[in-house]
Formats: sequence, structure tokens, C-alpha cells
Amino acid sequence: METITSRQNPTVKLLRRLASGRSRGESDPAYVEGILPLLRALHNGVPVRLIAYAPDLLRSEVAQAAVARAREQGIRCSAFSQEVFASFSRRDNPVGLAGLVESQWTPLDRLQTDGGTVTVLHEVKDPGNLGTIIRTIDATAGQGMVLLGETADPYHPSSIRASVGTVFAVPIARATDNGQLLAWCRSRGATLVATSAQGGVELHQTQRRGPLAVMLGSEARGLPPELLAAAELTVTLPMHGQASSLNLAVAAGIILYELKHRQAGAASQVDRSVEAP
Amino acid sequence: METITSRQNPTVKLLRRLASGRSRGESDPAYVEGILPLLRALHNGVPVRLIAYAPDLLRSEVAQAAVARAREQGIRCSAFSQEVFASFSRRDNPVGLAGLVESQWTPLDRLQTDGGTVTVLHEVKDPGNLGTIIRTIDATAGQGMVLLGETADPYHPSSIRASVGTVFAVPIARATDNGQLLAWCRSRGATLVATSAQGGVELHQTQRRGPLAVMLGSEARGLPPELLAAAELTVTLPMHGQASSLNLAVAAGIILYELKHRQAGAASQVDRSVEAP
Repeated sequence: METITSRQNPTVKLLRRLASGRSRGESDPAYVEGILPLLRALHNGVPVRLIAYAPDLLRSEVAQAAVARAREQGIRCSAFSQEVFASFSRRDNPVGLAGLVESQWTPLDRLQTDGGTVTVLHEVKDPGNLGTIIRTIDATAGQGMVLLGETADPYHPSSIRASVGTVFAVPIARATDNGQLLAWCRSRGATLVATSAQGGVELHQTQRRGPLAVMLGSEARGLPPELLAAAELTVTLPMHGQASSLNLAVAAGIILYELKHRQAGAASQVDRSVEAP
Repeated sequence: METITSRQNPTVKLLRRLASGRSRGESDPAYVEGILPLLRALHNGVPVRLIAYAPDLLRSEVAQAAVARAREQGIRCSAFSQEVFASFSRRDNPVGLAGLVESQWTPLDRLQTDGGTVTVLHEVKDPGNLGTIIRTIDATAGQGMVLLGETADPYHPSSIRASVGTVFAVPIARATDNGQLLAWCRSRGATLVATSAQGGVELHQTQRRGPLAVMLGSEARGLPPELLAAAELTVTLPMHGQASSLNLAVAAGIILYELKHRQAGAASQVDRSVEAP
């Protein structure tokens, strides 16, 4: 097995470019680094074009076994010297496992609600925020995410990292414009919910049930007037301090967690009614 | 008024070092960048050693007025050329306002609970996470924060930025060891609450009232066994997806928001009982 030791190797140059997160083209694969994120991509059947590993760094037996299994399945697996791996790694202390995988997009017309919550992000700029929100969507068993407008790339290395690889577990769709989103909501019977730093109904006061499409706006400006106007309900988190808003990913977490809690509560009530004599 | 145009100017070198966030000494001032964060420092009476501004960049009239007022109050205000300002700025598009301010620490024995919630962070490593949690503590009118162990610096530029300057509004104390924290809890009648990714009571099932000290552990390892054992109650957020945990700042947000909601609910119940005939 050959180990790549030159920084000038074309694969190393490709890894370095894709790891930087700059100007990823539509057909470029996504750079995934770390054991959990790459195992999640493999576990979810995402097409993997390359597994890059550094034998001198990769201590995890689980990860070593995954590389061996991937090679048996015909996935290209390349070994790199510790120094060359560090030259494209985004981490201070790389564990020696990375990969290039295909971006997965769910067509909007195949995104289902199943009575749950879909998160809609409008012009969210920071890929780290995006990935953190994806992690929360996964943790709250959200039905997926719809991106609208000039939003950060969910397959940017910073997003994949912040999502701890759950970007490969959450269906991600794009809407070309507001009209397409509204049509999708109608076709699914989903209530369109806006979130705003002010002027809405306090989260705990809302009672809306059934499928929801919860919209979050950009870090700096929130949702635009036309999306606020289109929503059937606007939710606000009360602010008690000097700051007038929360971090976007934190606000998303509070809202998605509370909605999931109610859904779970409603489900357990149904269970009890079924069991009642 | 002189404008500094040399990158070799000693003040520029100092700003560059402090803006980098590397190896800030105990007596070094903190680097604050942006209009809101610097205005929050001034508003909260934090001693400001220097205001650095770029006349060519600073468009905000509110900010210009604040600089003029600070100068009248005897605060040193230095003007920089756009290019030199950009050489120490941490932002892609600097607004042209930064400052050096003194770190503010509240002695632990002066930190009060007022029946509310104090957040305890053990060995949290990422200053961005720390600042995001501080922003949430402010938004939920938390009583303050206690840092324990090798924790990131709340006055690191990344923390100040993530906090949007609320680091100057939230009392921040340090405990030298677990024993000092436990003694502080006893003296305040505060319930020590641990948080854990598993094995605790689900947040919505807990009923604890009165002053709380809510502990959050490091991003990678959570709380150590001795702090889990010392807690009177351990709270867990249920996970429904492939990931086994949430982002630390998101988890903190969910917990602090829910606790604040109950506190507000309890307060309004008291109000109603007073009003009842």
C-alpha cells in the first residue's frame, strides 16, 4: 500500500482546496473530516469518492475497520503521511481520517412532513450556524430542512463539522423562491410559522399542532417582510437582558426542542387513549 | 487630530496582538470590536483604555457620537487609516470601531442568586461557545456565570464577539475548585444541577424551584464524575436522532430558556394570587 508523502500530489491539492471551503462548485464533492462525520456519511449510504487517512495518526480501531470495509466495497482509500495529512486538515490535532463525498439534495417535492416539523432557513450566512442547526434538527427528529435565498452551503466543511456529520442524516431541500415554498406548505397542509426577535406570539403561548414549516431568517436581519407577511403565525422568544436577540442556532434549538416536546407529549396522550378501556 | 497610518506604530502592534486572542496575559486588556459590543462596555461602566476608530470606515452617527463623548470624558481615542485598521481587525468588513477594555471579574462571594439561575461552566474550551452562552445568560436574565477548571477566557475576542458585548452585562466569577463552588451553593441555598447527555431526568419532568446553579461540562467530555456525583439533580435533553448530543451552547440555551420560562410563570402566578379577592 502506497503512502502519499508529497504536498504536490494532485489529490493533496484537491483535498486542500476542498478543505478550505472556498468556492466549492456545484459538482465538487464535500470535504468531511473526523471519524464520526465520515462514519455517518458511510452509514447513511452517501456516495464516497475518496477516503483519506494517515496510518500514523489514525488510532481508532473502529475507524481502521471502517477504512478496510470501505476498501473491500471498492471505495478508493488513500494513505497519507502525517505531515501531508496535516497540510490539508482543518484541525489543530487531526485524527487522521477525512473523505470526499457527494452532496445530497432532496428534491422539494419529495420532502415529507409526517406531521412533524420542517425547518426553513432564509439567507443564513454562516455555515457553522447552519451545521449547528442541522445537528439540532437531527436531535429533535425534524423532518428536514428547506433552504431559501442566498444561504450558506450545508456541505461547506464548517457546516459538516458543526453538524457532526448529521448533515448526512437530515433531508435537505432547496426552494427556488418564496412561491415554491408556499405551494409546498399548501400541498403538505403545513402551517407556515415565522420567527422574529419581536412582535410575535411568545413560544410557550402558541398551541399550533400538526405539520409545521418553521422559518428562521439571517443572523443580521431576520426574515424579510414578505415572509413575515406570508406566515400564519409569528413566534418570538422573550428577551430579558441587554441583548435584543439570541444566537440564531440557539434560538432554533429552543424552538425546535419545545415543538418536539409538545409533539412527543401529544403522541403519548394518543397512546394512553388507545390503551384506555 | 492625528491619524495613525503606520502598521509599525506600537499601538497598532498591541492591537494586533490582542485582537489575535493568542496568549492574553492576566493584566492585558480585552480587545472589543464592533459598535454594539463597545457601546455595551461603555454603557456598563467598564474601564476603557483605548478607543480605536477609522474615520473613513465609521459611518454610524451613534458610534461617532459615542467616540466624541468618550473623548470628552478623557478616554484615549485614536484614529487609524482604513488600511491600518483592517490590519488588526478580525472582520472581513470592519465597521471601523474597536477598543481595549479591562476584564471584569466578580468575586465569587459577591455573586448573588436572587432566586434565579447561575450558570457554571466546567472546562469549556471554545471561546465562541462561551460567548454564545453568555449572550443567552443575558437574554434569560441569568444571575451570572461561574467558571471552573481550565475554561476558555470569556474576554477572548471570539467570546466577546459571540456574546455581542453582553460579557460586560453578565457577572462572571471564578471558583478555584469544586469545594469552593459547593460552599458557595450552600451559602446561597442554591440547588446544584448537573447536565448530562444521558442518564438524567428529562428537562420538562423536573420541578425544582428556587435558586439554581446549573453546571455544563466541556464540549468533548461533559461533566466529570465528581461534579455529577455532587449534583442534587441531573438534567438530560432527550435525543431523537443519530447524534448523541447537541451543540453545547444550544443545550445551554434550551435549558436556560425553559428554566426562565418557569420562573416567569411562577412569578405571574404569585402576581395573580396577590390580585385574587
